[in-house]
Amino acid sequence: MPAKNINDVVALCKRRGFIFTGSEIYGGIGGTYDYGPYGVELMKNIRDAWWNAMVYSRDDIEGLDASLITNKLLWKYSGHEAGFSDPLVECKKCGARMRADKMADQTKCDACGSSDLNAPRPYQLMMGLSIGATADGEVNAYLRPETATTTYTNFKNVLDARPHKLPFGIVQIGKAFRNEISPRGFVFRMREFEQAEMQYFVRPENDEKYFKIWKENRMAWWINVLGIPAEKLRFTPHEKLAHYAKAAEDIEYEFPDGFDEVEGIHNRQDFDLGSHTKSQNEFKINANVLENKDSTTKLSYSDAQTGENFIPYVIETAMGVNRAMFAVMLNAYTEEDLGDSKSRTVLKLKPRLAPVKAAVIPLARNVPELLEISNKIVDELRMLGLGRIELENSGNIGKNYRRHDEIGTPICITVDHQTIEDKTVTIRYRDDMTQERIHADKIKNKLIEIINQ
Amino acid sequence: MPAKNINDVVALCKRRGFIFTGSEIYGGIGGTYDYGPYGVELMKNIRDAWWNAMVYSRDDIEGLDASLITNKLLWKYSGHEAGFSDPLVECKKCGARMRADKMADQTKCDACGSSDLNAPRPYQLMMGLSIGATADGEVNAYLRPETATTTYTNFKNVLDARPHKLPFGIVQIGKAFRNEISPRGFVFRMREFEQAEMQYFVRPENDEKYFKIWKENRMAWWINVLGIPAEKLRFTPHEKLAHYAKAAEDIEYEFPDGFDEVEGIHNRQDFDLGSHTKSQNEFKINANVLENKDSTTKLSYSDAQTGENFIPYVIETAMGVNRAMFAVMLNAYTEEDLGDSKSRTVLKLKPRLAPVKAAVIPLARNVPELLEISNKIVDELRMLGLGRIELENSGNIGKNYRRHDEIGTPICITVDHQTIEDKTVTIRYRDDMTQERIHADKIKNKLIEIINQ
Repeated sequence: MPAKNINDVVALCKRRGFIFTGSEIYGGIGGTYDYGPYGVELMKNIRDAWWNAMVYSRDDIEGLDASLITNKLLWKYSGHEAGFSDPLVECKKCGARMRADKMADQTKCDACGSSDLNAPRPYQLMMGLSIGATADGEVNAYLRPETATTTYTNFKNVLDARPHKLPFGIVQIGKAFRNEISPRGFVFRMREFEQAEMQYFVRPENDEKYFKIWKENRMAWWINVLGIPAEKLRFTPHEKLAHYAKAAEDIEYEFPDGFDEVEGIHNRQDFDLGSHTKSQNEFKINANVLENKDSTTKLSYSDAQTGENFIPYVIETAMGVNRAMFAVMLNAYTEEDLGDSKSRTVLKLKPRLAPVKAAVIPLARNVPELLEISNKIVDELRMLGLGRIELENSGNIGKNYRRHDEIGTPICITVDHQTIEDKTVTIRYRDDMTQERIHADKIKNKLIEIINQ
Repeated sequence: MPAKNINDVVALCKRRGFIFTGSEIYGGIGGTYDYGPYGVELMKNIRDAWWNAMVYSRDDIEGLDASLITNKLLWKYSGHEAGFSDPLVECKKCGARMRADKMADQTKCDACGSSDLNAPRPYQLMMGLSIGATADGEVNAYLRPETATTTYTNFKNVLDARPHKLPFGIVQIGKAFRNEISPRGFVFRMREFEQAEMQYFVRPENDEKYFKIWKENRMAWWINVLGIPAEKLRFTPHEKLAHYAKAAEDIEYEFPDGFDEVEGIHNRQDFDLGSHTKSQNEFKINANVLENKDSTTKLSYSDAQTGENFIPYVIETAMGVNRAMFAVMLNAYTEEDLGDSKSRTVLKLKPRLAPVKAAVIPLARNVPELLEISNKIVDELRMLGLGRIELENSGNIGKNYRRHDEIGTPICITVDHQTIEDKTVTIRYRDDMTQERIHADKIKNKLIEIINQ
């Protein structure tokens, strides 16, 4: 059975080295987390799977990695500076501050129960920075609150370097920052998080077609690549659309507490390129944009065949990478009753996502002949370039199996005295715990076969 | 010949989509850069090559990826808050601010020449943040100025999750931030940059041995993996050691303007774990550390055999990833005279580092038979999982060769009418421009062989 509540997975994350509290030894700092030896690998595998699907497997999408520190003007014209805020309420009695829309009772302080509250005021979610020696502490830059805007502002740079015809896309995976009033739900809502976002540029008349295509494409990726069962995923249209959006739907995963957003697919029309382009008056911009006298660059597309020069529409897919990892772990987490009041915890990850691809275990510790053969197998498997391969030289095979079940290692390979004689090893499979004796020469192909499942 | 000055490479970076100015359409923001389609891939390939050498190829090193936003206490005890500053001079006449140690003439303003200058004052290089709704703009957190300290503070977390005996290491690749007064040298000195750092924990008596081993190991990596000739690299010991350092040497690369630092190898003794550990008095700490009453965790190592419990020493290797990329590009950049007043620019990258691994080019544009065969080859090569494979369907083979020379693609595969008849293709090699006709079935192995060079 998958995890019934998030605490099981949170405990596993700390115990087995997936995720630790940020700045933990100094009492932490809310809404930040550090990724440990296996968390790093799982995040990397999810990133690589996404990049492989979005960039390497296609002809029409380019990669980008923009700076996290950004000029304030990006966020003036994107609308974030004026509008990217939560309603903040302060209690006059105890001084507590809370999000108005998350209060248990909107008339009473969550902390002390007083009803003597200030009226809600907008609270800027972007994190300000003071850059350079002349700033004197004044906020003159922001950490980006999303990757998307830093993609739009590079539209012309990318197109000049690598010409494409519409439709084409630009993707980024990278960090973003939001000064959440109340971070919550472990890695679900953090102040520092990672996004994998695609902006797909289309002719205006094709927007609905590609919105539908990308909805289907992304849902299929969650099912086929991340291994989440279709019944744990659903689409939910936004109740209220942003003024520039023609359509917006979330992919939601069924967390233990209920369905919640893991990715969004948005038809943003021409709002973004229209907001950031120079010479707005030369184009018919459909969206309601601020007048822009600061941009130095036209963000339009020239159609060589028709001679048109226009602002493309944008279909966006925006995934939270940490949320994807969290959903993958919750879905994979399994407690199994083995009878005789024994049980095991196992992470039934898709093998390609597993932090460790295989463990090689000499049956006894520090026996030179066993260690030599084991090291040879380890070296051969590492040459495949599939990721982490671990040697376990503790001589405690039961403990090794338990640990590798909990971190999701697809196979354990045991080297024993029979191996010295006939070069066979025992392969133990994570999911059903069956064991099989095979010749050492066949391990490589066996592992490749499993990873490609 | 390699690049004679950095401007050739800077121009190539913009033209071919490796690196763009950060926030460019709004006039930029000093010391930040955005990585374009090919820069992303080159950075990723360098990161992966480092991670492969440091984590996947070894039994003794763990990965970590800590938050960029950090509790201020980390930097109190690391010494950064008090000591991580540049001397800033302000001109009383024109108001210009400059680094005292970088002034052309220490008695005169760089901007206006006035000698009416304020005395140098320390200027904090860490970027402050105001986190949470109660902060009211007060700086209560820092963006980390290095990865190292966020590794030390996770020492116990990692060791608990994945027990190791000394010596063992923990690595991070990730962003760091420094509010440089004068960013310079393109991506050489930025305000936002990427580090690949290893902290190797050793018994105190073994520090000199491992300092030597890691010096040799890292230099060999620069030569063998990044492909930099040994004569372009050298070690330079620090002129003045930090108070906690027993030894510190830089690996320097010969940039067009002279040798400069690309990586540092440091013997930091027990300063770091000693600074951040709880119960400092229980240990014999050699380094001069601040008294720490805030840490909640002992950062010591227990030797099960001897019963000792002590603070290990640290050997650190600290590489700038952006500098590595810059050095790799400068070294690979080649202008070749082809005779008849023709020339070409080619990026002679190690094939594994190349942003695009192969380009498949139908000889004529939009010929269905050629396109079908080309797409089939592209699909097969993509299945290898080696990275970007591009299809070029422009029908302009000369232009395609030029572009792929400039971005360093090791081979171009041309599909022509003879391919329809006998399934042979032409392979054109980047470095010597020789061409060879081979059967399409052999392309896969040919590419694997080239990438493994």
